[in-house]
Amino acid sequence: MLYHVRMDVRLPAGLDPQERAALINREKEYSQDLQRSGKWPHIWRIVGEYANYSIFDVDSHDELHRILSGLPLFPFMSIAVTPLAAHPSDIAVAG
Amino acid sequence: MLYHVRMDVRLPAGLDPQERAALINREKEYSQDLQRSGKWPHIWRIVGEYANYSIFDVDSHDELHRILSGLPLFPFMSIAVTPLAAHPSDIAVAG
Amino acid sequence: MLYHVRMDVRLPAGLDPQERAALINREKEYSQDLQRSGKWPHIWRIVGEYANYSIFDVDSHDELHRILSGLPLFPFMSIAVTPLAAHPSDIAVAG
Amino acid sequence: MLYHVRMDVRLPAGLDPQERAALINREKEYSQDLQRSGKWPHIWRIVGEYANYSIFDVDSHDELHRILSGLPLFPFMSIAVTPLAAHPSDIAVAG
Amino acid sequence: MLYHVRMDVRLPAGLDPQERAALINREKEYSQDLQRSGKWPHIWRIVGEYANYSIFDVDSHDELHRILSGLPLFPFMSIAVTPLAAHPSDIAVAG
Amino acid sequence: MLYHVRMDVRLPAGLDPQERAALINREKEYSQDLQRSGKWPHIWRIVGEYANYSIFDVDSHDELHRILSGLPLFPFMSIAVTPLAAHPSDIAVAG
Amino acid sequence: MLYHVRMDVRLPAGLDPQERAALINREKEYSQDLQRSGKWPHIWRIVGEYANYSIFDVDSHDELHRILSGLPLFPFMSIAVTPLAAHPSDIAVAG
Amino acid sequence: MLYHVRMDVRLPAGLDPQERAALINREKEYSQDLQRSGKWPHIWRIVGEYANYSIFDVDSHDELHRILSGLPLFPFMSIAVTPLAAHPSDIAVAG
Amino acid sequence: MLYHVRMDVRLPAGLDPQERAALINREKEYSQDLQRSGKWPHIWRIVGEYANYSIFDVDSHDELHRILSGLPLFPFMSIAVTPLAAHPSDIAVAG
Amino acid sequence: MLYHVRMDVRLPAGLDPQERAALINREKEYSQDLQRSGKWPHIWRIVGEYANYSIFDVDSHDELHRILSGLPLFPFMSIAVTPLAAHPSDIAVAG
Repeated sequence: MLYHVRMDVRLPAGLDPQERAALINREKEYSQDLQRSGKWPHIWRIVGEYANYSIFDVDSHDELHRILSGLPLFPFMSIAVTPLAAHPSDIAVAG
Repeated sequence: MLYHVRMDVRLPAGLDPQERAALINREKEYSQDLQRSGKWPHIWRIVGEYANYSIFDVDSHDELHRILSGLPLFPFMSIAVTPLAAHPSDIAVAG
Repeated sequence: MLYHVRMDVRLPAGLDPQERAALINREKEYSQDLQRSGKWPHIWRIVGEYANYSIFDVDSHDELHRILSGLPLFPFMSIAVTPLAAHPSDIAVAG
Repeated sequence: MLYHVRMDVRLPAGLDPQERAALINREKEYSQDLQRSGKWPHIWRIVGEYANYSIFDVDSHDELHRILSGLPLFPFMSIAVTPLAAHPSDIAVAG
Repeated sequence: MLYHVRMDVRLPAGLDPQERAALINREKEYSQDLQRSGKWPHIWRIVGEYANYSIFDVDSHDELHRILSGLPLFPFMSIAVTPLAAHPSDIAVAG
Repeated sequence: MLYHVRMDVRLPAGLDPQERAALINREKEYSQDLQRSGKWPHIWRIVGEYANYSIFDVDSHDELHRILSGLPLFPFMSIAVTPLAAHPSDIAVAG
Repeated sequence: MLYHVRMDVRLPAGLDPQERAALINREKEYSQDLQRSGKWPHIWRIVGEYANYSIFDVDSHDELHRILSGLPLFPFMSIAVTPLAAHPSDIAVAG
Repeated sequence: MLYHVRMDVRLPAGLDPQERAALINREKEYSQDLQRSGKWPHIWRIVGEYANYSIFDVDSHDELHRILSGLPLFPFMSIAVTPLAAHPSDIAVAG
Repeated sequence: MLYHVRMDVRLPAGLDPQERAALINREKEYSQDLQRSGKWPHIWRIVGEYANYSIFDVDSHDELHRILSGLPLFPFMSIAVTPLAAHPSDIAVAG
Repeated sequence: MLYHVRMDVRLPAGLDPQERAALINREKEYSQDLQRSGKWPHIWRIVGEYANYSIFDVDSHDELHRILSGLPLFPFMSIAVTPLAAHPSDIAVAG
């Protein structure tokens, strides 16, 4: 099942640069593991913002919440989740 | 180049049912032609709303505007366009 | 899977009273069938508004969209859908 | 009488991890006591957010305010309360 | 139990002047009956707007919804309801 | 002359508990003096929020601003003031 | 006593041009009478909008509401009123 | 003096196609005359919207309001005007 | 040329009281110099808020920006500027 | 390809004055290099705000994101990007 997710990141002003680099590294690994598993098929940077639009493909709401709340950057993010259905004009659906 | 697009449709209350059906049919054909050409790679229905999130892959802003303003439903839509860049965590980008 | 749904109804000003009554009757039957099936376990009126908060329990985003877009009042509604996960403090979950 | 409540939590950035864990534990106990008493019949996590939708069933506005303002996390929450009435389509009401 | 209510009225542009006068008259009678009964203790005009702030004193959410949805102007109003609790600084409460 | 006032309080996170208690005490005394004088005839707690709706009855805008800006909690409040006029349906006005 | 008022005008699309011209003329006369009386000391056009910022100088909220609700364009306006107090830096006040 | 202007156009649903074409033609001529005179140095289409961002270079607020309120599409537009100053980093300013 | 300006002040929580008093004093002097010069003809306190509405009368956008960005409180303000044109109903204009 | 960009700057309250001056200097150099290269053809100060409207002319979304996220002030900015297309009334386009 597909979900559209927007994530906006706001890191605290006084964050130690090394801690910051480590945090972003962990975020990247976490994200790439999920991309490789097929659960996070798309991630795009929103131009000019510390934010992304992503598509998740998971089995349940609970699974998505576990994934999102486990993001290393989760405490510094605001996240908006929108469930997606098949569109009647989609050629992959309409055959 | 990728663009994230949200389209919300609001058809006028008194629209003739046949005219409405024909309009929606033309919209579907127009969309599917662009999907087949690779310029409109994703279209998803937002659950519970007469709205979609789409991804477009075109060569220029002008081309995108020509496509969107040519939508048969364009006069009844409000549209929000967001340019997308490669995300540094994207495995398709990072190799 | 649970979804939180808010529905706001705005009927057109000049709607014929009989047509209106028939429409609301069909809406009621449609809703009660789904309540009896267990797919629409809660519906509450928001005090002072022509609106409701509802909880749906369905198998997929596609099923929810079919249900919502099939509502007789759908063309006159604005709808907001929020996916719900188990809360860690919920005694039904935590045992 | 039923109330729909949305709670959004924002913990201060520099909160001591032990203090934080103790706080969340007290919140959980406080919530579960009220759930067991029947006054807090539903609590759901909003997917991707540190937030919940809850339903309260109490005797008066004053009782609800005492409960909410007594939440251990209350100083870190923003809360929105909506009174709920019986919906005319509700099968539990309409018989 | 007290509720704070804001009502904004928007009458349709083409409303027949006599129908309009009759409607406003019925609204006034309906309101004054409730004021005399003690259920609608305060009503104030918001300066410069076709709107009011009111205080209701009723026994339940259901009673308030019956009263509000029975207003002759209800179909032309948008209404926002806020439940009120005793304030700890209120001299009527604190003694 | 009547004014509708909404006050939202946000105390700084690190406020010393004793200072906080003293501040709230001074606020209460200040408010109760004005209530006794008849200038602050109503104060209600908004359920679930650190906020109130109040009605003030004073002689001028300047007097109201002196009162509000003198509140011990004023530096931690956001305040919205709405002037109120007599409502034509008010039985106290219409006789 | 001074009030800051913003008025936004939205005339109905199908308004008869003569009726429209007559309406705007009556509005102008009504406004100029009040300007001459000293009750409406300032009126400015907001550049690019069918809107104005005005200052009123009247004795009471009730008087201001009578004036504003008597505007020939009142049914087509949205109006926002803000009470003004003397500013401590104002040289007319500070001497 | 420079002004940043955003114009959003919303044509009425039932507008006669010929009237519409004539209106848009008059708008184009009006705009191009001002462009040629140097008073309207930039106009850009906002991708996906019936809207534009423009820059005006005129001598006074009054002149800008005369120009904007004279637009053939003015009755169907919402317009937002922002005055622009020289930016200290601008190489045309800083030399 | 006239400009309508709204200024909202938010002083940092931990500001030293003496520094604060000095800052507000400098602001007052700065403002009163401009009032005496005729460039800042009106300043009004918004009742209940640490905010003002002001009217400026200056020769250019650049001059206004120099004045506003030079305010001692500028780093702690949010400011909204609206250019004003003559109103066709203004008796000072219409003669 | 053209992009409309709005940048709002909010520097942290406790920023060291020298660090601040150095930061703003680096921002200016960075901006002026891009202006000279033709990639940042316009930058205007929004009167009364620590903000600018800019026009960028670059080859791709990725290039724009690299430029914007490389701004020395980027961590203290909120940025909104809008893609621009040729306007059919533009004399530079229409010939």
